[in-house]
This record gives sequence, structure tokens and C-alpha cells, in this order.
Amino acid sequence: MKKADIGMIGMAVMGENLSMNMERHGYTVAVYDVWDGVVDKFMEGRGKGKNFIGCASFEELVANLEKPRVVMMMIRAGSPVDETIDKLLPLLEEGDILIDGGNSHFPDTARRCEYVEKHGMLYIGTGVSGGAEGAFNGPSMMPGGSPAAWERVKPILQDICAKVDDGSPCCDWVGEGGAGHFVKMVHNGIEYGDMQLICEAYQIMRDYLGMTCDEMHEVFADWNKDILDSYLISITADILTRKDDDGQPLVDKILDTAGQKGTGKWTGIAALDEGIPLTLIGEAVFARCLSAIKDERVAASKVLNGPAVKFEGDKKAFIEDLKNALYASKIVSYAQGYTLMRSAAKTYGWNLNYGGIALMWRGGCIIRSVFLGKIKEAFENTPDITNLMLDPYFKDAIEQAQAGWRRVCAAGIASGVPMPAMTSALAYYDGYRCEHLPANLLQAQRDYFGAHTYERIDAERGKFFHTDWNDGEVGTTASTQYTV
Amino acid sequence: MKKADIGMIGMAVMGENLSMNMERHGYTVAVYDVWDGVVDKFMEGRGKGKNFIGCASFEELVANLEKPRVVMMMIRAGSPVDETIDKLLPLLEEGDILIDGGNSHFPDTARRCEYVEKHGMLYIGTGVSGGAEGAFNGPSMMPGGSPAAWERVKPILQDICAKVDDGSPCCDWVGEGGAGHFVKMVHNGIEYGDMQLICEAYQIMRDYLGMTCDEMHEVFADWNKDILDSYLISITADILTRKDDDGQPLVDKILDTAGQKGTGKWTGIAALDEGIPLTLIGEAVFARCLSAIKDERVAASKVLNGPAVKFEGDKKAFIEDLKNALYASKIVSYAQGYTLMRSAAKTYGWNLNYGGIALMWRGGCIIRSVFLGKIKEAFENTPDITNLMLDPYFKDAIEQAQAGWRRVCAAGIASGVPMPAMTSALAYYDGYRCEHLPANLLQAQRDYFGAHTYERIDAERGKFFHTDWNDGEVGTTASTQYTV
Repeated sequence: MKKADIGMIGMAVMGENLSMNMERHGYTVAVYDVWDGVVDKFMEGRGKGKNFIGCASFEELVANLEKPRVVMMMIRAGSPVDETIDKLLPLLEEGDILIDGGNSHFPDTARRCEYVEKHGMLYIGTGVSGGAEGAFNGPSMMPGGSPAAWERVKPILQDICAKVDDGSPCCDWVGEGGAGHFVKMVHNGIEYGDMQLICEAYQIMRDYLGMTCDEMHEVFADWNKDILDSYLISITADILTRKDDDGQPLVDKILDTAGQKGTGKWTGIAALDEGIPLTLIGEAVFARCLSAIKDERVAASKVLNGPAVKFEGDKKAFIEDLKNALYASKIVSYAQGYTLMRSAAKTYGWNLNYGGIALMWRGGCIIRSVFLGKIKEAFENTPDITNLMLDPYFKDAIEQAQAGWRRVCAAGIASGVPMPAMTSALAYYDGYRCEHLPANLLQAQRDYFGAHTYERIDAERGKFFHTDWNDGEVGTTASTQYTV
Repeated sequence: MKKADIGMIGMAVMGENLSMNMERHGYTVAVYDVWDGVVDKFMEGRGKGKNFIGCASFEELVANLEKPRVVMMMIRAGSPVDETIDKLLPLLEEGDILIDGGNSHFPDTARRCEYVEKHGMLYIGTGVSGGAEGAFNGPSMMPGGSPAAWERVKPILQDICAKVDDGSPCCDWVGEGGAGHFVKMVHNGIEYGDMQLICEAYQIMRDYLGMTCDEMHEVFADWNKDILDSYLISITADILTRKDDDGQPLVDKILDTAGQKGTGKWTGIAALDEGIPLTLIGEAVFARCLSAIKDERVAASKVLNGPAVKFEGDKKAFIEDLKNALYASKIVSYAQGYTLMRSAAKTYGWNLNYGGIALMWRGGCIIRSVFLGKIKEAFENTPDITNLMLDPYFKDAIEQAQAGWRRVCAAGIASGVPMPAMTSALAYYDGYRCEHLPANLLQAQRDYFGAHTYERIDAERGKFFHTDWNDGEVGTTASTQYTV
């Protein structure tokens, strides 16, 4: 009997759809799930008559694989991954490959990679984005881990992944250890940011311009035709036309409370750890937290007052401003996300291909967009660009957008419609291009109360000075003392 | 020979000043430092002729202490604390008390508390704020750990701490385990926020209004007379009058790059872990990160353009608006910090006294202010208040301030002066009082691409619905399917 090219553990929606995708591309897939009946149901259902080998145990799965074996886990992140690894390792041989395609936290993947390699096997932690539909039709995949594993799994992963128009696969090697899951984490953080930006655009149209869902549908459908062309804008346009059973817009019936737990939070923590200002994604994560306390907000809405400003003016012009605000904010968000990846690459010793990452995100995944093609071009033109905003295309784009961007933020502020992500993005833009931030005062304060010392504009960097600001009786420091 | 009431390990600036403070209050202090010569220098210097017992080893220190012994560590946070604990434990007896007064991370303190208690001793991790001057004259102290230790150390700590006008000590029991260091961490996060707000006020006066340091000094000195009366405003006024050797304002000579590493970052991470929107402190931490990349900013300032808007109008009125913006933003920042403490108290099982915490911060520490007296009153009036902004005093204060607050944020946006903390605070205010956030659209998006389900406004909470939005061929879900 023919052995399988790859084994799949975990036949929930993602594992099942990835397996279908692999089989459709000519691979034989051995499938296993720890829950009784799942494999039987699949083999009698979607898997019937296809090149699947249903397995009833880890042993059977492993016995049915071509060597070197490749086993992919599509299971819940966390301890189940560790437990599955420990069950598989005794059954595998040197050079066999384990793939974790779940949403694992990158330090866990780095640790597991080291652990599996110590046993003589190889490990890949790969981000898989695109949801169930992407898994079936072609996801974006971001594999990292043991470099020696890549040649063996590359054909499979690049066959099943999404392709951009020119046929380039949305899957390429990211880097060692936890690099793949790190990049997937940033992808998800950016997804939080993109969704928040769309929500802010939606809210100001709904609450300030007083537009109907059908009108807003037209706007998003229109935006989806050029620079904002993207999966999330397109599904937003779809959502806004959807009617409930009573003929009213379904979106109006949905409770405004969103969850956040995983990767958005991790992205924020990684940014704090790296010391990289990731303000937009941070605001997006916190906006979800704020949405979650619905009852508190309802109560507060009856107590805390705001302005009663109604929109007056040219609605069409405002919507054009809004498009610019969304686009410019999006540039900031991606610029911030890329600086985070650049910083982490230095910290963890990864040699990340930034243009390649944009290409992986260009298709298949939730944040796929025309925009990512422009990012790929920016990195092709200047591979070591410090900040995406400095790329000529994006610099011009922000400059053309900024007047409208500022008007929209000001409108949100005047009318009391919260726009945390768009205003935060603008503050970052203005801060990043600010030669003299007020941190000189901050350093003076820190030196005043804590003798933290400061550098001077007229001395070389790395020389630290202290002033006895309050001429106090405590300590022995002299005024403007040179301390190195 | 008389034994000492307390032992001090670590005679750097904080340990030395705390020891002097204790001795001045009638306590005999045994002092020790692992670095050769430090104790001798102290005993021949500031400690000469006073009730100190200089010790040359851990053993000597312990031998010189009254029982039950109290040993305070004022040493570098991190592994030195663990190492010192391991050196001391074999020398101590059941019921002896170890105090860590450094800036330890609260999970470390929780772990150490458990560890020390397992050995039969008691442990306190206490925040100490106020810098060198505070340590000497009376710091704010936030002790937590083993409750059984409190009665023994309470007289010492409440003697040496700062007092408010009515004599109340700025030190009281916070809670078990890592509670003291958690509250100190939030204090430091709030300190980041307060400093950033002052910096934003300073920058817009400097860069938009074109004011001199002397003029800005007048503003801060004036602000320090009523609702903004606080240590940080007062030292800001001081700093702005300080002249360099050439007669020019010293603050203008200081490089605008600030460091961030410790507690501000931890506060942001704790907020992300708790799912509490702590946007202002988050922006303040990221603003420091942005200040740190000075060279990048200088380069970007030559490439990225902004608006050329000059201030026109009534400067005095704008400064009054600015005061309101600072005050309202400060209310938001403390409201956010308190919701973080409330959430953590639930997570870790602490019974925090929120008014008491305001009282501890009311004097001695860096964020001391008249404002904290108002917070204490708010918690006296409504001990379980959900959010400080709902307190009648603060609600009125924000309402009176908000028109000016909005004008200032709009001016920053129009003029290109970054105000990340003030605008983020406003977005939080507007989000918190928003009955209908746009998260209904976000939930629709998540359900569209990931079948994450949503709740409905016309169904009870906890019932989740799914819609097959794209009528796709993947999966088996039906339209608006009832799933729970």
C-alpha cells in the first residue's frame, strides 16, 4: 500500500481543510484525531474516495508515512502541542519533521524547536492565515524553525499555499526557531489594526455623517477598487449589505463587544519588550477591551456627556478625507509592524526577508491587499529601509493624504466619535518626523528627582551629566557635574 | 551592646538615605553592603556618631538584630534579590522578616513570598517612591507580602514614611504576595503618564505658541497653585528657570532622548494581560521609545513634511484650554490605572483599599499631588466605584474641561505637534461613554472570515450566532445558524 506524503494530526476545521487542499494537489495524507469518530466521519464524508489514509493512533499514523516523515499538527495551541510532541518523538526517527501549524506563541516554538532538534528530529512552527476558506483554497503560510527541514516540506507547502497574480507562492522560509510564529503574530497584530481602522471609518460615517448601511456599503465597495483594495475592505462591503430576516441590516443586530486574548496582546507585549512604538496595534487591542465592557459603557453613556456636533458640509469631500485617513493610518500601522520585526530579528538573530514577508501576506491571508504589493516593492527598492514611511511611494502617499487625515481626526475629536487608532497613528507620524521631542524636559525631570543623568546636545553621545536641580541637602552631587 | 531594630542590606543612595531616616526616628540600624569599604565609608561619614551598627557580613548583620529580626534589602532588582534571600534564610529563624524595597517585578515578589514563607520566615515586598530625597525625608511606601509581618514592621515604616497634612502616613498595608510591588508598578506607570502629559503641554507651548522657557515657567508655576498642584508640575516650573553656564535655559541643552525599560513597560504588559485599556500609559511608554531613536527622527524630519500652521488667537485662552486638557487627561490616566488595579485584585485575590492607595501616593512619592486627595475622597464616597470618571467631582471636572481639551487636541493635530497621550485619553473618554462602539462590525468581520460567532442585541447574552456571510462552499454552516 502506498504510504502517505504527510500526516495530519487534528481534523478540526483547519486541519480538515488543509488536508483536503494537500490531497487536491496530489499528495496522499494520513489523518488522525485524538477524538473518537472524527477520522471515521471524515473518511466517510469529505475524504471519501480520495487519497487519505485514516489512522486510529499515533503509531498507525507514523507507520503510514514515507520517510523522512512529515507530521503536521493542527491542534489547539498550548500544552496539547507539547503533549503531542512527547507522544510522537519516541515513534519518529532522525531527520523526521514535525510541523506545528497552530497559533503558537513564538517563544514556545523556539523552545520546542530546540527540544525536538535535541532528539534528532526537525521542527517547523508555521503561521497559517486565511481561516477555513484559506486553508482549503490556499492559505498564507509563514514557516520557521529548523532550516534543514525546509527543502523537504517546501514543495508541499508552496503547492498548497495561496499564489499572487504572477504565480509566486504566499509561503517562504522565514527564519530559525520561533521566526515563523513571530511573523504570524505580527500579521495578526496588523489584522487587529486594519480591522480597528475600518471600524473607526465605519463609526464616524454612522454616528457623525449619519449614513445608512447601504450608503456605507457603497463607500467600502468604492474604496475596494484602488489603493485600499483588500480582503477586509471587501468583506466589510459585503457585511454592510447583508440583511437580517426582518430586512434590516444584520450588522445593526450584532452586539458591539469583541474578544481579544491571543496574538494581538502578544504583539503588544513583544513591542513593549523590544521597546518599539507599536501604538496603533496597541490602541486596537485596547479598543477591543473597551468594547468588551458593554454594560459599563451603557451606564457611562448616561452619565458622561460629550459634544453635540452635527456634520455640516460636503459629505463626499469628507468621505474622501476619510479614505485618506484610513490609508495614511494603515501605512503607519505597517511601518510600526515592520520596525517590530526588524528589532526582533536583531534580538533573536533572524535574517528576515521583509519583502518576502510582504509577499507571503499579499495573498491567502486576512490582511491580503494590493497595499502589500507596494510594501514588497519598497523593500525591493531599499532592502534595509529603516521605516516604511521613508519609502518614496509611501512618503508621497502620506503627504497627499495628510490634510484629509488631519481633518478627519479633528472631526472625531470635535464630535466625540472615538478614533484611537487614527489619532494615535497621526501622533506617531508627527512624533517620528519631530527633530525635537519634549523628552529633554522629561530627562531633566528624571535627573531632578532620581539623579538619572542626561545627555547634552552640545556634547558627544554617551556622556552623561547631572545637575543638582533643587540645591538639596541630600547627596553629594555638584551642579552640572560631569559623570561620564 | 544594644541590638539593632532593623538591618539594612545595600548602602547605595536609597539604602543609605532610608537608614538615615530610620535612625533619625529613633531606630538603631545595622547596616551591611556586599561591596568592600561601603559600610566603613558610611560609618566614618554620614553615619558617624549615630545609632548605626556597621557589619562586615550577613552573619554579623543577623547576629546584631533584635528578634524577630527584620532585614531590609535595598539592592538591585532581579537575581541579586534571590541570591541574598538564599544567603539569609539559613541564618534566620522562624518568624523573622525579610523586606525587599527595590523595584522588583510583582510576580517575582509573589514567588519569593511563597518561597520564604515555606522556610518559616515572613516576606514583604514594598514599593518605595520618592527618590533619594524621599528616602531621606519620608518616602511613599507600598508594602505587601506576608500579612503576619505587618504588625512588626508597621511602626518603623509608618514612622519613616511621608505624612500628609493631617499627619496620615503615606504607607499602609496593600495586600498579599506581590500586591505591594504591583501597586508600585502602577504608580510608576502613572508617573510615566504624568510626565508625558507635562511634556506634551510643554511641547505645544514651545513649538506651537512659540513661548520661551521663562514664559513657560510662569505657566507651570501658576498651574501649581490649584488643581494641578503636584510635585511634577512644581519641578517642571523649577527646571524651566534653570540657566546653563552661558545664561541660556539648561533644558534647551538637554538631549531629547529618554530611556524606558522597567516598570512602565511592565505596567503596559500587565494591562494587556488583564485586558484593561491602559491607553495613556501605553502611549507614554511608546513615546519614550520614540524619543530614544533620535538619529532616525532627525533624518525623518528632513524627509517627512507636516503642516505649517502658526498659532493665531488668544494665547491666554489657549493656555487655559491646555490646563484643562492636561487635567482631563490626567483624570483619564488615573481612572485607567485604577481599573487595572481593580482587575488585578480580582485576578490575584487581593483586597485592595483604593482610597488608601491614593493616600499612600498623596505624599512622598513622585506623583504626589492635591489631585490624589480628590481620588481618596472619591473612593470614600463610593468605595466600589467602577471608574473614577463616574465620580461626581471628576465627572464635573472633565465636563468643564472637555471643550478646551478638544480644542487643544485639535490644535495639536492641525499644527503637527504630537500629543499621543492627550489624544489617546480623549479617545478613551469618548469610547468609554459610547453606548454603541463599532465592534458590531468587527464581530461580523471575525465571523465572516473565522466563524468566530457573535452575540445579538435582541438575544440574551451568551447566545452565539453564526452567519455564512459569503455563501461559501467551505464548511457546513447555515445562514444565521443558532450555535449555542
